[in-house]
Amino acid sequence: MELDEYFDDFLRRDWQESESGNVRFAMIGLGWWTRDYAIPATKQSALCETTAVVSSTTEKAEDFASDFDSIEAAMTYDEFKDGAHTDAYDAVYVGTPNSLHLEYVEAAAEHGKDVLCEKPMEAGVERSEQVVEAATDITLMIAYRMQTDPAVQRIRDLVADGFIGEPTHVHGHMSQPLLEMIPDPDQWRLDPEYAGAGASITDLGVYPINTARFVLDREPVAVQSAMYAGSEGFEDVPDERAAATIVYEDDVLASISASQNSYKSGFLRITGTEGEIELEPAFLKPSGLRLSRDGLDTTYDLPELNQARQMQEEFDYFSDCLLSDRSPLPDGEHGLVDMNVIEAAVESAETGERVEL
Amino acid sequence: MELDEYFDDFLRRDWQESESGNVRFAMIGLGWWTRDYAIPATKQSALCETTAVVSSTTEKAEDFASDFDSIEAAMTYDEFKDGAHTDAYDAVYVGTPNSLHLEYVEAAAEHGKDVLCEKPMEAGVERSEQVVEAATDITLMIAYRMQTDPAVQRIRDLVADGFIGEPTHVHGHMSQPLLEMIPDPDQWRLDPEYAGAGASITDLGVYPINTARFVLDREPVAVQSAMYAGSEGFEDVPDERAAATIVYEDDVLASISASQNSYKSGFLRITGTEGEIELEPAFLKPSGLRLSRDGLDTTYDLPELNQARQMQEEFDYFSDCLLSDRSPLPDGEHGLVDMNVIEAAVESAETGERVEL
Repeated sequence: MELDEYFDDFLRRDWQESESGNVRFAMIGLGWWTRDYAIPATKQSALCETTAVVSSTTEKAEDFASDFDSIEAAMTYDEFKDGAHTDAYDAVYVGTPNSLHLEYVEAAAEHGKDVLCEKPMEAGVERSEQVVEAATDITLMIAYRMQTDPAVQRIRDLVADGFIGEPTHVHGHMSQPLLEMIPDPDQWRLDPEYAGAGASITDLGVYPINTARFVLDREPVAVQSAMYAGSEGFEDVPDERAAATIVYEDDVLASISASQNSYKSGFLRITGTEGEIELEPAFLKPSGLRLSRDGLDTTYDLPELNQARQMQEEFDYFSDCLLSDRSPLPDGEHGLVDMNVIEAAVESAETGERVEL
Repeated sequence: MELDEYFDDFLRRDWQESESGNVRFAMIGLGWWTRDYAIPATKQSALCETTAVVSSTTEKAEDFASDFDSIEAAMTYDEFKDGAHTDAYDAVYVGTPNSLHLEYVEAAAEHGKDVLCEKPMEAGVERSEQVVEAATDITLMIAYRMQTDPAVQRIRDLVADGFIGEPTHVHGHMSQPLLEMIPDPDQWRLDPEYAGAGASITDLGVYPINTARFVLDREPVAVQSAMYAGSEGFEDVPDERAAATIVYEDDVLASISASQNSYKSGFLRITGTEGEIELEPAFLKPSGLRLSRDGLDTTYDLPELNQARQMQEEFDYFSDCLLSDRSPLPDGEHGLVDMNVIEAAVESAETGERVEL
């Protein structure tokens, strides 16, 4: 395939099987992410819509619902668990803090509803295993937004087609100044009870860790890491910043880092025996893609998808899987691997020892 | 200082004290690097010149000398050690394979000659310590070309002046397809007897490891690493490719990688609490420098210095130090730190354990 052919029809969806459909979503957890990105994503979609919302109080849920025409049902968390309005939705989006995922996946499964669950899938490996178990009879997808991002999909294709030869190294990084963005020291992302062990590696590091898996099409086999936390607000977490060397299958060596107390930045670089691919920025709004091999060194300025548009790709992919009755790629077992990597990274930073997965 | 002021007079030498001088060099080891880069560097210089060459046979040395007007003395390695032509040169450049550095530093020191010694400074920590000991009464500089590279010097200034706030992360990588560049499986870089332990981390990794030290102005305190070797030609070394997490002072986490069997590439990125600096390509011909903070995201296309021109900066800095009777920054003790990092990285890859330095 010629290089330009990868990019000519940039927004093409190699995965799409259904032209239309109407998967009706209940949204659980009505924070800014759900309001600004998740619901607008379903609004733009030809395959799904938001028909129900779930929050802490009836008032909050109804207030929220009144802003969106498509929403028929507004209910509390308890009402959701008790099976209220199950006729009003087909699937559930779980956008709560990590450690609340399990109970909503369990409830959704009881009602026979499929689940799109935010990443990381829960707080820790043990609870994530319970999520997988709870979802035995439903379709569960972990919301790795990057896997349906067109730029990341093109990179995966290029790697699979040998553009860089055999992959040898990955460098990936994601950081942000969390306490400037959300100036609340008591927020759940800095509370291990809600977030699980690790703040930076868990919430941000999971992006390069999982995206590397996806573009390499190789699983992680060993982790070493170093972490630091010393600034105000980071007293309860091990990793105000983290860096890990992750060995993927075929001995691809990945240098992954993340920080919740650093300049906003993100990049992904895959080096091989014959070439190199770099995406920057990556993860939030992937836009600049540099491809290099032999005498070639070219940069594609990609259409910048905002996060709602990225979320639409994700919701549409999940909906398409449901409509055509197939399993999404990032299922619960897939998500569990990242949870193991994260827990191994926290352990390795403590003990100083490499952890085999 | 305004940002542009760092770059307006890009080739300025903040370190220079002598306007002119004539440090006369004896070149030891007459490979392509010496011929194409080291001697041309001294030819362009106003502070030094090449007046003597040392090789395996009289014939080879004389042949080589006949190509350069300034060379007065040509001698064998044994003649050099025995003190031949000591009137013809003031200082010595050691550009031999790593494990031969010690004997020439010892001989130069016996003759009272100062030494500019290629990096890494020897094969292993123990022999490097002997180099430091041998050089007690002379001036010894390790040839870290990056430290006198104008782009790297500007980055160091920017970091010191707080452009990125507090540094938090470094990503650095250097790779090349060694056996395509020099198609000889018996070359010294792949022979631990000559190169010391490690092929990629030792010969290439030393660039990002040392450049990170220099721009951060912080010393390494702990190392973890993973290495792989499996391809033809890499049977005798642990690291066809290597990746290390190096913790520098103030818990700056550096993700460093290197490969002798990968696409030619090199970059250096320093992230801080307030901004980010990226140099790419780095190490061989630093040229693209991206600076980012607040609303600022700007790229400087720097004058590309070829390696002879880079080497001139290095020879001139060393000569200037000799002419003004001061010690160069990257002295033997400085070089020893990198040797410890390299040996620790090899050890960590074997044992899987973090090595404190």
